[in-house]
Amino acid sequence: MKIKVYVKLKETVLDPQGEAILQSAKRNGYDFIDSVRVGKIFELEVSKTENLNEKIDEISKKMLANPIIEEYSIEVGE
Amino acid sequence: MKIKVYVKLKETVLDPQGEAILQSAKRNGYDFIDSVRVGKIFELEVSKTENLNEKIDEISKKMLANPIIEEYSIEVGE
Repeated sequence: MKIKVYVKLKETVLDPQGEAILQSAKRNGYDFIDSVRVGKIFELEVSKTENLNEKIDEISKKMLANPIIEEYSIEVGE
Repeated sequence: MKIKVYVKLKETVLDPQGEAILQSAKRNGYDFIDSVRVGKIFELEVSKTENLNEKIDEISKKMLANPIIEEYSIEVGE
């Protein structure tokens, strides 16, 4: 089974990497871009297990995201 | 308008970061996880412009992904 965990910085947290890309884009003439935010996707391949959803939530909190500055969402695939 | 560019390593390219997370997960008892691959999401906020799709494709190729080892997909939002 495939699971995707999307991790992104909270709206209130500055994103220096996104800001650097934005400035570079503007210097290269792409001035229609107003903002850039960078996030991560973790694609997990998992076997069947009990309480899968809770376990994935646990892993997301402990290992994939930093809940102080990041938020995450989980998408369970086929 | 919001645009998301998803960037991930090609299937044939090793992902040491994903591998490290996998090993750490297994050590922590999450042995139902079979593989982990890490990708990036770039969330762009853009103004209207001519040939938007081609320009976003250009930026993805030049600035967001490394086409030698990565593939990307573009999702145009509302």
